[in-house]
Amino acid sequence: MLPSLNGETRLHLILGDPVGQTKSPSGLTGEFVARGANAICIPVHIAPADFDAFVAAAKRGQNIDGIVITIPHKFAALRHCDEASDRARFLGAANLLHRIAADRWRGDMTDGAAMVAALRRAGFNPAGKRALVIGAGGAGSAVALALIEAEVATLAVADMDTERRSTLIERMAARAPGAVRTGTTDAAGFDLVVNATPAGMQPTDPLPVDAARLEPSAYVADLITRPVLTPLLEAARRRGCKVVTGEDMFAAQAGDMADILLAPPAS
Amino acid sequence: MLPSLNGETRLHLILGDPVGQTKSPSGLTGEFVARGANAICIPVHIAPADFDAFVAAAKRGQNIDGIVITIPHKFAALRHCDEASDRARFLGAANLLHRIAADRWRGDMTDGAAMVAALRRAGFNPAGKRALVIGAGGAGSAVALALIEAEVATLAVADMDTERRSTLIERMAARAPGAVRTGTTDAAGFDLVVNATPAGMQPTDPLPVDAARLEPSAYVADLITRPVLTPLLEAARRRGCKVVTGEDMFAAQAGDMADILLAPPAS
Repeated sequence: MLPSLNGETRLHLILGDPVGQTKSPSGLTGEFVARGANAICIPVHIAPADFDAFVAAAKRGQNIDGIVITIPHKFAALRHCDEASDRARFLGAANLLHRIAADRWRGDMTDGAAMVAALRRAGFNPAGKRALVIGAGGAGSAVALALIEAEVATLAVADMDTERRSTLIERMAARAPGAVRTGTTDAAGFDLVVNATPAGMQPTDPLPVDAARLEPSAYVADLITRPVLTPLLEAARRRGCKVVTGEDMFAAQAGDMADILLAPPAS
Repeated sequence: MLPSLNGETRLHLILGDPVGQTKSPSGLTGEFVARGANAICIPVHIAPADFDAFVAAAKRGQNIDGIVITIPHKFAALRHCDEASDRARFLGAANLLHRIAADRWRGDMTDGAAMVAALRRAGFNPAGKRALVIGAGGAGSAVALALIEAEVATLAVADMDTERRSTLIERMAARAPGAVRTGTTDAAGFDLVVNATPAGMQPTDPLPVDAARLEPSAYVADLITRPVLTPLLEAARRRGCKVVTGEDMFAAQAGDMADILLAPPAS
């Protein structure tokens, strides 16, 4: 899958804790190769306590052009950006850092757009729909913003961390007055349910919503990439729901991410 | 060449300035794959000013198991080792750092043994021979020590940095009294001439020795890997000498390096 690996290879890292579940090393590297680039995406397992020093050091690597960020570093990542996209600034988070000049890095947050793209690919148009997002962390916030921008009629946000939940709801309400409210684990009445919590990565995790209350007509999406079919998605399928996996979401954004990461620095 | 690149891939870095010329990314990765390991060696271009912070950060990467060191970082590398081989301590330099426990790293310096192995493969037995080493840096010191250990009769060391040269000669003389002396760019009378300077990486570089004075029966070796046939080696061939390239040297040590790097940590 990697025609050239040599001293001239350009690097893109994906930083996470854990990192074993990520699809970027194979998926992004495949996109790089398809574009004719001698570039690779490699996983680095970095704990939160080591994150800031590691990113500062990685940015000094002269052949390191991009840093992809996954759980739990997306909020911490933004402070390492010299500039950032509107959506990254609004969300206070970044999942993508790319070098735009010798000593200058730009942050972006593509998770939300990726989920909306994956939903559209699966046949779901968010406009006018009622959506429930579970989890108000970095990825959940990004999905919430992208759903507002895709003009959902209702956005309910649930999180066990009520302060984090309320903060997200307040900020989203400013963008779409009247459309945003507090959600719970009750999925009844929603056209779309998105899990943006880690619940489902371990087989013993409880379901993030009560599956018996899922509307059989609903779309259910999960940001988790391993297992691909989380217990929530399996339960949703049994209810007759259509499902969108974390892999679907990654596949929907890999090309766009590769284009951003491979854009040559200005200097 | 890389059957599996995913979130579980273990990392080995090679750090240099420059790094584009290194053979480790393809060569070591090939050795890892041949041993059935999901591991990769990737190049990172790090300037001396950034080296210490980068190594400290890289050691915090939980899937980073090894760090290979090339020009000009071999002396700086040793201070990042919690323990080191005898030869690395004697030389004050390391070309290989490997994780031996969760938070413990061991340094080694395999360049000298690699050169002697490559010479033996090419049919040259150093015992009793007269050797001239040009360059008293990290790699040159390692080659000098390995030649002493391989029982050369004479070891002459040349370096434009006379203090560095004298320091190396003093230390080697303690190991092999009477055998070690100051060398010049005059290759006459030597059975073996080794270039351990960067002269030859650029086409405009002067030759490290006067090629007209090479003995036609001599072996001439160069540690430079790009170009593979340096101007010195080309001139040596024209004189009728046998040559050993930096690629030969790398090939002679890649398997041993991979074995060291893949050894599992004690905890």
